[in-house]
Order: sequence, then C-alpha cells, then structure tokens
Amino acid sequence: MQLLVKNGVLVTPFDTYKADIGVNNNKIVVIGDLSNLMAERIIDAQGMYVFPGIIDVHTHFEIVGGGGVKTADDFYFGTKAAALGGVTTIVDFSKQEKGEFIMDANARRFREAQGKVCVDFGLHSHFTDLSSNSFDAIPDVINGGYSTFKLFMTYKKAGFLIEDGELLETIRKTHDNKGMVILHAENDSICEYFTDKYIKENKLQPEYHAASRPAIAEAEAVSKAALFAKETNSMLYIVHLSTAQGAQIIEEARTNDVKIMAETCPQYLILTDDKYLETNGHYHIASPPLRKKPDQDKLWEGIKNGYIPVVSTDHCSFTTKQKDAGRDSFKNVPPGIPGTETLLPLMHHFGVNQGRISLNKLIEVLCHNPAKIFGMHPEKGALNIGTDADIVIFDPNKKVRLGADTLHMGSDYSPYEGIKVQGYPITTILRGNIIVENGQFLGQKGFGQFIKRKQPEYI
Amino acid sequence: MQLLVKNGVLVTPFDTYKADIGVNNNKIVVIGDLSNLMAERIIDAQGMYVFPGIIDVHTHFEIVGGGGVKTADDFYFGTKAAALGGVTTIVDFSKQEKGEFIMDANARRFREAQGKVCVDFGLHSHFTDLSSNSFDAIPDVINGGYSTFKLFMTYKKAGFLIEDGELLETIRKTHDNKGMVILHAENDSICEYFTDKYIKENKLQPEYHAASRPAIAEAEAVSKAALFAKETNSMLYIVHLSTAQGAQIIEEARTNDVKIMAETCPQYLILTDDKYLETNGHYHIASPPLRKKPDQDKLWEGIKNGYIPVVSTDHCSFTTKQKDAGRDSFKNVPPGIPGTETLLPLMHHFGVNQGRISLNKLIEVLCHNPAKIFGMHPEKGALNIGTDADIVIFDPNKKVRLGADTLHMGSDYSPYEGIKVQGYPITTILRGNIIVENGQFLGQKGFGQFIKRKQPEYI
Amino acid sequence: MQLLVKNGVLVTPFDTYKADIGVNNNKIVVIGDLSNLMAERIIDAQGMYVFPGIIDVHTHFEIVGGGGVKTADDFYFGTKAAALGGVTTIVDFSKQEKGEFIMDANARRFREAQGKVCVDFGLHSHFTDLSSNSFDAIPDVINGGYSTFKLFMTYKKAGFLIEDGELLETIRKTHDNKGMVILHAENDSICEYFTDKYIKENKLQPEYHAASRPAIAEAEAVSKAALFAKETNSMLYIVHLSTAQGAQIIEEARTNDVKIMAETCPQYLILTDDKYLETNGHYHIASPPLRKKPDQDKLWEGIKNGYIPVVSTDHCSFTTKQKDAGRDSFKNVPPGIPGTETLLPLMHHFGVNQGRISLNKLIEVLCHNPAKIFGMHPEKGALNIGTDADIVIFDPNKKVRLGADTLHMGSDYSPYEGIKVQGYPITTILRGNIIVENGQFLGQKGFGQFIKRKQPEYI
Amino acid sequence: MQLLVKNGVLVTPFDTYKADIGVNNNKIVVIGDLSNLMAERIIDAQGMYVFPGIIDVHTHFEIVGGGGVKTADDFYFGTKAAALGGVTTIVDFSKQEKGEFIMDANARRFREAQGKVCVDFGLHSHFTDLSSNSFDAIPDVINGGYSTFKLFMTYKKAGFLIEDGELLETIRKTHDNKGMVILHAENDSICEYFTDKYIKENKLQPEYHAASRPAIAEAEAVSKAALFAKETNSMLYIVHLSTAQGAQIIEEARTNDVKIMAETCPQYLILTDDKYLETNGHYHIASPPLRKKPDQDKLWEGIKNGYIPVVSTDHCSFTTKQKDAGRDSFKNVPPGIPGTETLLPLMHHFGVNQGRISLNKLIEVLCHNPAKIFGMHPEKGALNIGTDADIVIFDPNKKVRLGADTLHMGSDYSPYEGIKVQGYPITTILRGNIIVENGQFLGQKGFGQFIKRKQPEYI
Repeated sequence: MQLLVKNGVLVTPFDTYKADIGVNNNKIVVIGDLSNLMAERIIDAQGMYVFPGIIDVHTHFEIVGGGGVKTADDFYFGTKAAALGGVTTIVDFSKQEKGEFIMDANARRFREAQGKVCVDFGLHSHFTDLSSNSFDAIPDVINGGYSTFKLFMTYKKAGFLIEDGELLETIRKTHDNKGMVILHAENDSICEYFTDKYIKENKLQPEYHAASRPAIAEAEAVSKAALFAKETNSMLYIVHLSTAQGAQIIEEARTNDVKIMAETCPQYLILTDDKYLETNGHYHIASPPLRKKPDQDKLWEGIKNGYIPVVSTDHCSFTTKQKDAGRDSFKNVPPGIPGTETLLPLMHHFGVNQGRISLNKLIEVLCHNPAKIFGMHPEKGALNIGTDADIVIFDPNKKVRLGADTLHMGSDYSPYEGIKVQGYPITTILRGNIIVENGQFLGQKGFGQFIKRKQPEYI
Repeated sequence: MQLLVKNGVLVTPFDTYKADIGVNNNKIVVIGDLSNLMAERIIDAQGMYVFPGIIDVHTHFEIVGGGGVKTADDFYFGTKAAALGGVTTIVDFSKQEKGEFIMDANARRFREAQGKVCVDFGLHSHFTDLSSNSFDAIPDVINGGYSTFKLFMTYKKAGFLIEDGELLETIRKTHDNKGMVILHAENDSICEYFTDKYIKENKLQPEYHAASRPAIAEAEAVSKAALFAKETNSMLYIVHLSTAQGAQIIEEARTNDVKIMAETCPQYLILTDDKYLETNGHYHIASPPLRKKPDQDKLWEGIKNGYIPVVSTDHCSFTTKQKDAGRDSFKNVPPGIPGTETLLPLMHHFGVNQGRISLNKLIEVLCHNPAKIFGMHPEKGALNIGTDADIVIFDPNKKVRLGADTLHMGSDYSPYEGIKVQGYPITTILRGNIIVENGQFLGQKGFGQFIKRKQPEYI
Repeated sequence: MQLLVKNGVLVTPFDTYKADIGVNNNKIVVIGDLSNLMAERIIDAQGMYVFPGIIDVHTHFEIVGGGGVKTADDFYFGTKAAALGGVTTIVDFSKQEKGEFIMDANARRFREAQGKVCVDFGLHSHFTDLSSNSFDAIPDVINGGYSTFKLFMTYKKAGFLIEDGELLETIRKTHDNKGMVILHAENDSICEYFTDKYIKENKLQPEYHAASRPAIAEAEAVSKAALFAKETNSMLYIVHLSTAQGAQIIEEARTNDVKIMAETCPQYLILTDDKYLETNGHYHIASPPLRKKPDQDKLWEGIKNGYIPVVSTDHCSFTTKQKDAGRDSFKNVPPGIPGTETLLPLMHHFGVNQGRISLNKLIEVLCHNPAKIFGMHPEKGALNIGTDADIVIFDPNKKVRLGADTLHMGSDYSPYEGIKVQGYPITTILRGNIIVENGQFLGQKGFGQFIKRKQPEYI
Repeated sequence: MQLLVKNGVLVTPFDTYKADIGVNNNKIVVIGDLSNLMAERIIDAQGMYVFPGIIDVHTHFEIVGGGGVKTADDFYFGTKAAALGGVTTIVDFSKQEKGEFIMDANARRFREAQGKVCVDFGLHSHFTDLSSNSFDAIPDVINGGYSTFKLFMTYKKAGFLIEDGELLETIRKTHDNKGMVILHAENDSICEYFTDKYIKENKLQPEYHAASRPAIAEAEAVSKAALFAKETNSMLYIVHLSTAQGAQIIEEARTNDVKIMAETCPQYLILTDDKYLETNGHYHIASPPLRKKPDQDKLWEGIKNGYIPVVSTDHCSFTTKQKDAGRDSFKNVPPGIPGTETLLPLMHHFGVNQGRISLNKLIEVLCHNPAKIFGMHPEKGALNIGTDADIVIFDPNKKVRLGADTLHMGSDYSPYEGIKVQGYPITTILRGNIIVENGQFLGQKGFGQFIKRKQPEYI
C-alpha cells in the first residue's frame, strides 16, 4: 500500500462518515476500517475532515490581461498556491489569437502550462475567431480533451466578442459533438455605453466600474444564452454569475427544461460593491463587478437549491503596483482578482460555518459537480474506489486571518485581507502524492498532468 | 346637420346596435333614433355595418426602400387606395438620415406628406442617429406630436440598427417623457449569419429569404425588448410580430406585468412561407418573412386573447418589375408588400367570417386600440359624441375577388391575388366628408390632416 | 321625448364625454347634442356625472339569516335604499328548501319579491338539494331566466354545503346548458375546526370570528373551484372574495386559461379586522370575515388589473338589537352587514378619489361587467342606444358623512359610520322613470321588474 | 471478516464501479480491492451488480382489507417473498382503531409483526382518530420511531377519512415535531358520487372501478395537499401517485418551493386500465385504479426528473378466490394487488432495460431516497462504510417469466402474469446474513428487526 489516510471523517456530497482510505498506484483502492493495514506512508487524520481534492474550473494563470499587463501568477506560482488551498485540479483557458487555428492555440497553451503546473489541469478552448477551419475543427478539439469552449458575449473592442449568429451555431455544433459552450455573459453594448458615458462625465472612481457594467447587462446576456440553449436544445454554462436577475433567469429556464448551468465565485458571495468606496477600492476591480447584498442572497439560494451547481474563482491576479498604475481611472485598472487559494476556506467559513450550506453541499459544488460537468468524472471529484487519490485533509478548527502575509499567490494583497476564517486545509494529496503537508508545499513544478476531458454532463 | 348616416348597425369594441349617426362640424354630434332629423346629406346604411374609420398605424408610403428602389405608392396614390379600403387614418414614418437632427427629419417628412395625403396621418419618428442633440430633443419631439419612436434592432448594414446600450436608454428616456418606443425586433447578427451562409452556398431562391431570418431571430429580439421594458418600467410596442415564439414571450411578459404590446399584420395571419415556393414567390419577400401554420394559430390566439392588441399592415409596395429586377437572389428583391387597402376586408373575412374573432374584436384591433395606443383617442377610433366623424360603411354581403384588377394600390400585383372575400367597405367618411362612395374615390389630394399625437396608452 | 338629461358628463367603461341623453319608451333613444330637443321632463346635469344605473349582483333582502333572525330590510325597504344609492338593478337569491323542487323555490321567491321591489331584479337559484328532479331541471331553470346557480362550499351544518362530487357535476351540467355556478368559497371543515376550538377555549370575542375562518379556508375552496372549472372547461364565479391568497389563485388560473371570475365587496376593500377589536366589533361580523391590509391591496390590484371584474355588496342587514342579542359569542351574532346603498359612493371615494382606479373602471365593475357576466347585457349596464334608461346622476362634489342618520337601510347602524365621502348620487332613473331626485325617493313599491337573465359571459 | 462479496459492480445513486465489499458485525466495514482478504464466507459476484438492499416503504401485510377480507400474505409469508425479490426493508402500517390510543395501536401492530418478519421493518402510524389524547401524543409517537403518519383523504364510509381542518393541523403539528404526514390523496366525495352513480346504473364491471375514481379525484386531493404543505410550511408525501394531473401539480408546487414529495408504484408505470377489460379484469382492482398511457409517461418523467423521488408497491395481496367472491360488482372486489417481490425486477426491466432511467436512478428511487425520506439513513439505502450490510446481488442477464408459478407471494396470480423480464436478484443479504442465495430463501422467521425511524428528510 502506497498511502493510508486514517481516522478521518470522509465527506462526500451525500454522506459523512468515519473511514480510512488506502491508496495504491495513485488510486483509491480501499475505504473502510483499515486498522490492520500497513503502508509506506500513513497519515493520521484524527479530528480532521477528509475531502476529495478541490477543483477550480475557472483560473487565469500566466496571461497578459486587460491593458497588456501580465498576471502576477504564472502556472507554477499560481498552482503552488492552489495546492496550499486544497485545490488539486484547475481548468484554465487557452486563448486563440485572431487568425490562429484553434488547435494550434490549444497546443501552444498546453506547452505553456506543461512542465510548470503543480496540480492537474484541463484547458477550456477560448474561441475568439470562428472562421471556418477552426469552426470545422470543433469535433477534433473536443476529442482532444478540450471539450468546453469559452465564448465571450462582451469585450468587442478586445476582439473577444462572438456575434449572436456565430454564437448560436457554435452552441449547436458544440453540443451536437458532445462538447459544451461556456459563456462570459455581459451585454457588450450596454457596458460600452455606460463606460463611455462615465468617462465623458469624468466619473473615473472605482465605483463607476460597477456602474458601467450594470446588472441588466448580465441579465440580458444570460437571458439570450437561455434562449439559445433552448433553441438548440443544448447544454450551456454561464461563468462567474454575479446578479440576482441572472440567477432568476437561470432558475426559471431550468424549471422549463432548458439545460443551462452557472457557476458563481466567492467574491460575489462574500463581498459587495461597497468595497469600491474604500481606500484602494480599485484593487477589487474585476468583471463582472462586485454587486449588492440581494445579489449575494440570491446566489447563495442558487447554490443551496441547486440551480448554481458550481463555485469557482475566476482567479486573475495582479500586484498592487500593477493595479495602482491605472488608479487614475477605473478603465485603466487591469481587471481581475486572485482567488484559488482561498476558495475552500472561504466557502467553508461563509457557507458551512455560517449555516448557508451543508458540508455535503460544499463538496458537491467544489468537487463532485465540477468534475461531472466538465468531463472529469469519475477520476476526479469523488472519494471512491478507482478514483484518483486526490485528497484534502481539512482541519475544521484551524483559524487563519487571510491576508497577503498568510497567502502564497503572486498578488501582494488579498481581496479578503483581514477576514478571519475557521477551518483550513492542511494537507493536500495529488494522485497519492503528498504535495502539501501541514501547510508546507512539498510538490514539484510540472508534476501536474493534463486532463483529457470527456463529455460534459448536465446537472 | 351636415350629414346623417341612417339605419345602419353600429359596431363598437363592446356593442353592436342599430342607430343613426348625425354629424356636424365634422364631428359626431348625435347618435340614436334620428328619423325626424334633416341634414344636408343623408346616407341610408340599411343592411350595412357602420364602423369607425379604420386606422393603419404602420405604412411606408413614398420611400426609397431596400436596394434604393422607390415604393410604388406615393402619399397620394397610397392613401387614396387606403380610403378605398376603409382606412381613414394612417401612421407613417419619418426616417432620420445619419447626422440629421431628428426634428429636421420630422419636418422634412411632414412636408413630403402634407398636400398629398387623402386621409389623416400621423408620423412615427424613425431614429437612426441618437447622437446627443437628437437624443436631447426627445421631449420636444414628443410634444410636437411625434410621440412614438421607431427603432430597429436589425439592418445594421443599412445604418438602422440601434445598439443595445442606446436602445435601453432611449426606451427609458422616451417613456419618462410620455412617449413610446416601437421596435422592429429581429436579431441582426443571426439574420446576417444565415444570409451570408445561404449566399455563400448559392442558395438564392425566395425560400432562403425565410430561412435567412429564422424565428429565433425574432424571438431573441422580442425577449430582449421585454427585458428592457421591465428594466426601465416602460411601455414598449413590437411592430409586425410574426412568430409563435415571439407571441409566447409577449404573453408571458404581460402576465408578469411587463408593459409590452405588439401588432401583427394580415400577411402573417393569412399567408405562409409556402408562398415562397410558388412561381413569383419573390413577390412575397418582406421582413420578417412569412411563417408557418402554428405561427398563424398563435397570432390569432394573441388577437383573440388580447396580448396582440393591434393589426396593421407594414404596407410597402413595389411593382412586379421592381421585384423582378432582383429575382436572381432573395437578397436583391426589394422587401415589402402592399396591404393597407386590403386590411379591413381580409381581417373581416378571415377573422370574423371564419369565426376566429368577433365583429367587436375586429373594431377593437383596427380602430379602438390603435387610437388609444398611439395617442389619437378620443378623436379617432370610436363612434362617440365629439369624435371625428370618421366612418366606414361596410357591406357584409359584398363579395370581392382580391387582385391587382380590383385594387388600387401602386403595385401591379397583390399578395392575396385570387382570394375571394365576403364583406367589403363601400363608403368612407373622413371628418364628415364622404371620400369614398359606393367604391368610388371622391376625396381630394392633400385633404388629410396631420395628427399631433398625444401620450400613448397601454392596453 | 319622455325625458332629457342635459349637460352632463357621460361615463362609460371606455370614455368620458359631454353629451345629452334622450329617453323614450323607457329606452335611451338618442345621445349627443340635444340642445334643440323638447321633452316632457328635462333634467339639467350641468357639473354632474351621468352613469349607467348601478348593479348590485349580491343582495340578501328579506331572508331569515343565521340563527333564525330576519333581516332588517325586506324587499321594499331594501331596494328603496338601493335606489337612493344609485342602484337600479339587484340580483338576489332564491333559496331552495331541502326537498323542495328548485323551480318551486324560484317561483316562491319570485312572489316574495314581486310587488315590493323598487328597482329591477334578478334572482340567482340557490341550490341546497340537488336530488334528481332538481338536478334534471337545470336547463329549464336557466331558460326561465335564473341562469346562475349559487352553491355553497361551506355551512354544512345549515344544510347548505354541496359535496364535491355533486358540485363538480353541477358545474359541468350548468355550463353545458349555458348557465353558470357561483360559489361561496370557504372550506367548511377548516372553519368548523377552528370555530369548535375557540368555543372550547372560551374565546368568544368578535376577533375570534375572523380567526375561526382563516384565509386558508378561502384559499382552499377557491383553489378547488379553479380546478373544477378547468376540469369541466366551465365558467365559474366566486362571490365575496376576501383574501390575497384567493385573489392570487384566481389570477394564476385565469392566466392559464381557466375561466374563473370573482367579485369582492367594499367591506373587504375598505375595512380590516381591526374593526373586531372596537366597541361593538360584533356589528361587523359577516362571512367571510374582514381581513388585513395586504388582502385589501391585492383585491384593489385585482380590480385594477381585471382579474376581479365585479364589486358587489353581499348586503345582509340586521339591527343593533339583533346583533346585540348574540354578543356573548361570535357564534351567536347573526352574520351579515348592509351595503347596497353605500356601494357607489364608497367605491367612488376610496377607488376614484384616492387614485386606485379610474372613473371608467368604476363604471366597468359596477355596471358593465355585472351586466355582461350575469346575462343582463345589453339592456342593463350601459348608456347606449336601445338600452334601458337606467341612469344615475352623480354629484362629484357632494360631501356626505355616512351613518345611520344619513342612510336609509333597515339597519340602525352602518359599518362605515362616520366615514366622509366626497361624491354622491343625487338622482336615479329606472327605465326612464325618476325614482330618486335630489336625494328624495320618488319611486313606487313594486315598480321593479324581474329580469329574465340570459347566458352569462366570461370577462 | 464475516463476509466478503467479491468482484461485483457496485451501483450507487451516483456511481458504478468494480469493488469488493467486506462485512463485519453486520456492517459494511471495507470497500475496495480486497483480493488478499480472508472471510468466513465469500461470495463471488463476478458479472453481477451489487445493489444496496431494496426498500419498499408501502406494504400492507396481514391486514383485514376492504370488505373484511384478510390479505393472502401475513408478515412471514409476505416478507419471505420480499426477500426473494431483493427487498431487505419494508415499511408497513399500524392502523389505529376508532377510540384506540395511537400508541396502543402502534404497540399492537408491532407485536403482530415482531417474530414473523424476515426483513427489517418500520411502521407508519395510520391515524384514523385524532381525538385529543392521540393528537397530543404526536411528539411521543415520532420519538418512538413511528415518525411518519398515514392519513386518508378518502374512505369516509370506512372511517378512514380525516376532515380538512384536522388534516391541516395534523400536518402542522407533525412537521413541527419533526415527523411527516403521508397521504392517500383521493377526493372522497367525487369517488362516492361516481361509485353511487355507476351502481345505480348497474354498471358493475371492473372498468367502472376506474371510472368511479377519476383522475380529478386524485388531482383535487393532491392540489389540496400542496396548498396545506405551503400553508403550514411543512413537508408532505403523497402515496401511490397515479395520474399525470397529480404529477403536474406536484412538479409545479416543488418549483414554487413547496416541500411535497410523492411515490408511485410499478402498476401505474407498467399497466393501464385496459387490464380491466380483460378476462379477470377484477384481479387488477386497487385504489387508485390503473390509469392511461399519458399518465404512465408523466410518472416516468417525474421519476427521471426527480419530482417523484420514490417507487414503492402498495403491496396488498388477495387470492383469486377472494377476488372472485366479489366479481359480481367492482365494489365487492377487495381492492389491492401484490407487488413487493416484483418491485426490483420490474423497475429494472421497464426502467433501465427500456432506457427510461439509468441504473443509478434505479438505486436512487428504490434505496437511497426511501431511506433518507423515511428517516432510515445512513443505516439503510446505501453501500457505505458503517451502513447495515443489506446487499442484493443482481444478475443482469437472468431472464424470468413473471407469474404465480415463479413468484412466492400469497396471491395465486400475478398482475404481471406472463411478462418476461431480464435481470433478477439472486442473492439477498440482510445485515450481513445471507437470507436468499441463488433464489432460495435461507432466512428465518422473525429475523427482521424493527427500525426506529428518525426525522424525515426532504428530497
């Protein structure tokens, strides 16, 4: 036996029970009372929860973001921090350049990540150019394991926006070939209209970032997405849902048998746009912007009731120096905030500790659902015989004050600076290998493997 | 007494009863048993229905349409034919050129119509350029009697499309100033996508006109319109609704207290896209295209149940020569079909005679509702003391075979060629003046007056 | 000409305009500018509104009510007061005794009313015994002009309740024969349960009347009624709707094409159950009981939006002596309050003056809709050529303090005691005959005629 | 190690994977690759599915049913057959006699079952008399492990019906004390009305059993139940749901956050009322009756989409002799059909084999959900470390023709006579003890244990 995790309390989406876990050949091979078993390595998890490895299906490591600014986390640095936060799988994006063949873009991005990542990783194909050879390659891309396609309904100026006609047909073709489109849903024209307006009026403070991307911009895009999903009888997935209006539309569409799903992120569940009024409010600039209390409430309800089946982070980190360089105008601040490392402790603290969701639901939205939806089941997302031995040992009593000093990401600030959480991951195991132990990173650069993802599943 | 209409059966949206009508100073001054009254002119309407003058709120006379082709009907010719069809009021459009100040556009169009029109007329302000001085002039435009603003959600290449941000804010500002936006609701990108596709594939026959503007294009635009109406708490009106999907969205939105209305047109109620497969199928090219039987059924239901409160025509006529010039490709055919003259007889025949709607409902959707919705009540749309004496005498037994030979419009063909209807207007009275009698036009060029329209009303 | 009403402002459900009305042979024969006309009698209505005569479709005159107590108003006394309130038509009930043939019951009740009523009257057939000969007589009853059947879903102990099986089949048979069932919708078992409970607990004050008939009792019955209407594809009408829950169910059912209608009454719109806590709270005991502010709001919304198309009164009056005799326990107080005389002024004051509904909507729910729904159109409910000349002249400026001293009903108290209203009917005309002038009753006992009612209409 | 089940494919509601199971002290203690483990007893499940023991939460063993006829299965005989069908847990009913204290009824029924049952068992408290001492005992009953209360909305003549007022308050009180009401939902009056009618008309054939209990009877009762669940904010569970209408109401209520659940039974999924027209149609008489194809379709949809979370049997068996004794009239046939033994093979064959539901969904509705909903989780319904070792070994290839000769229930006929299924349970293990092996019963009378059930859970 390669590894034994003993005496812990296993948490699955459905059950919580005491059992030992035995690992061999990097897989879970036995679960139960293993008191008589020997192993090369034994971890005593007495008093601890034993979770499946956390999955963050929305990260942006090592990219050049808005305004040509390079993110503070490269694949190595970022995934090391991820591991320290209990994350064993990430799904990042491979952005196609205009004119680039989509499979070349994927290969290029694969090479950037390979050799650096410390946890397992998948890649969403980020389409920006659906000219015919790339459009025709959709089945091959899916078969290559890049089975989910990120499309933008906004950022026209940046060349990201996919027009409605192409969007509709890409959703249809992707679904017909057993892939799935995932959408950044904000109405471009509305955001541009208000951005121009506030700039013209010289309203440049961080709070105008929020005002320039109002809730109706998200609601309109989500509503269109639901209509297109219905029209094409396809699955669809909305990333970083942030508004009550958007959540309401998704809830209703699902009730009417439209196969639409959404993720939200901790920043939309825990922070509000009051943050923009604070000193250094611009550190919180990200798109969509932070919203209001009723939006938070509706998003938590969505998680609890199941119409928001995933929580991810949209991790995209910059340094205070990078952020400060654009502080004269909300439009000049590179948008994005870090998040992967704090995903699990924040969701546990604000979700479970504060009574909004059960411990089982926590694991459902951080492990089980992302694995199933993104074609990584059964290897990932579960503690089951035959699954990858991706395991997090979580101390429910450990108290940590979040902040740049206690975290390990490239950003020299945290959007959650000063927040005290109770409950923290202490040991992270990736395919049977201990990559974090008692808060120390023991992994290796490049140890993470590419996940050739299968057909997405509707939840 | 200027005029007496005797012995007829008056039809209002609510009642049907025998009464005489007395007219003085161009107004209805008395209704009832007027057997003892004298008058300069007495019309015996024994055996006839007496309707309020029909209102067609959607006409395109004397314009240069798609492909730079001038319509076959100028304001004189077109409104003469209208009068022969029982129409006493039209609302046409004043299109703003790019760079033109909206009030100049309105004044220009007013001058084009004035002196030619044979029936009373209003004008919708057709905005194509919402740059600031025109946007700021919205209150003045409304106060000038052009209280409804036509905006396009499509025809981007033609420079008509208003982007979503501007659209949203124009809806809001218009409503706040007691005006109303009316929308051509088709998604531009979807229509362009399929148009390009079929042209590339050399599929140029008329039926590809329908395929290039699929139902989802309308549904998406109507759905967005409903969302914007809700967001801005404004009234909104969709022109020429053609699909069951669109009708369904409107029905649901209204149920949820969104103040959205729609008109449909006889071509969507009576014809289907099978027409495109006939010889000269290209004569039926108009946008939106003809649809299918289930669309017809849903639109009739909408009229009956009230969520489609108006029927108009989108009259836009071309000659066979003009149509034929573009017959090599659906894209080259100037889109538009004639309709005003046949509005009343078609709706009576296919609606009332065939049992789909009551006689009262006919008058509601052709007179009462258009007058109220478009700010012409109480002067227009009703037979009431003090209203304009716009009266149609309708012979329910007269049979007419529709066709270029029996109609009077500029087109040398009719989309309804060969259809036999029972029931036809025989006499048309405008403000107490007989402008059509026994099927003969007796009116004068330029007799029509401009209607300074008031605040639209939600129905 | 028998009568001219000059210079008034006519109000219909759709329009408000200045016109004179000419009456001959008890019918309206001419409307308009009648300045040159002569008549036997001319009324100058300068500064006044001219309404159609008000219709109260729910009165209980001259009955033996709960606890064997005779109502304070017999047909003469009650309809005289009605006329003073602008009411020209009432619809009362003919209650079948157990074992009695329904047509005998109707004939008996007809004789009670005939010769006493001062305004025109119809009768609802109140079924209590659906044994076969009465059930089989349904078509004949309808043809006899008693086209609406009152059934109770409560009052089992009193022998009123119709069990669900019979109810379902009676709704079906009535509808199939062009009649309509109208329902007192309260769940009997729930009311009995709580009544017993409070009596056992010796909670006998008036507020326990309200508690003993909770909102869920009405909601359950209304919900069942909607289900039965759907099952049988029948029209159905709920009397004296009092709760927001009930209104919500009706709104939703109608949206789903269930043909269900409801009336509410001024007491549910204007008073709340706080009244039960006042001295003499027992004077307000009626079933259903007075409810709460949110119920009022929803009911007003229902009137405005059309899903509550009628306001009536459920007039059932007792004297303070009669009420006081049972004051030891809510169960011993004869239930019922007076209302017909105050229907119009209350609805005008709290509805129109306070901005909740328009003047046109007032006439719609008090005249037009009751006439159509209860088969009295076109003779009643409208000011139109050929209709009965039932006319109310209403002074919008007249102020009246409501109270036993200013009212004329048999009760020596008013539930609205002390309320000051602005706007009051001053003259009432029934079929061309002035029965009230300047607040003085000039009519005759027995002048009212029976209305042989036709097929109900869904609104 | 007490027992090893090797080489099988484990099926849970969420996963399907190959693993061995180790049992000790009657519990599952280890799952995984146990090739090196020794045990007292080893079962080779190569090529077999390994399911959790099946739970039938709706059985009627050893009762005197309709017409005073004793069921063919006593607790011993019935549960032996159950075990042969893979059922390891049943929940039966303890019926209170009128006047009997509810806890006495439970104790009495416990004694009847104890010592006879071959599988583990729970008991629903069947309330027929809610007089105060029983009503007050609700918390004690729940604490005693009888945490679900069966109430009837029908069978008034038999003394079963609970009137609405009591029903409402029992739902409330039960929920407040962490129990749950389960309802037989048929409207009594409607069933009585049609039963009387058909008997009067001498329509006594079996098909009139179906006609006498029409779909509306179930729909009305389910609708009321949903309303009461909402009113009291309580969980509620409908037994043996049989109609599309009922399913639709439940689907909508759940969408609106009403916590209502339902079970259906194989007879409503597989048979239709055509059965009543066959020779011996009376053998299929049960209440509710068999329904139609569209009902089946909707019920299957409900299972698939989750709004019908449980399938049980309503097992209530009689012999052909008992059935034949009443064959002169549908009313004289003792209602009820057998089902427990065939639950698993029928649901597997018609559900999984025919593509209606997945293998995981089969286990969800037969094991996981019934255990959670009825307070038997985590001990029952799952294959998990620490759960009771209730295990079924199922041969997916075994073909069986169902019929009295191949089954073991007390009835000498089967409603599924002649149906051939593929897939059959071959070995049944109860708490680690093999009670059926290769189709032979090896268990003991009275080996079944009473399950003190905990708080129901909403699914």
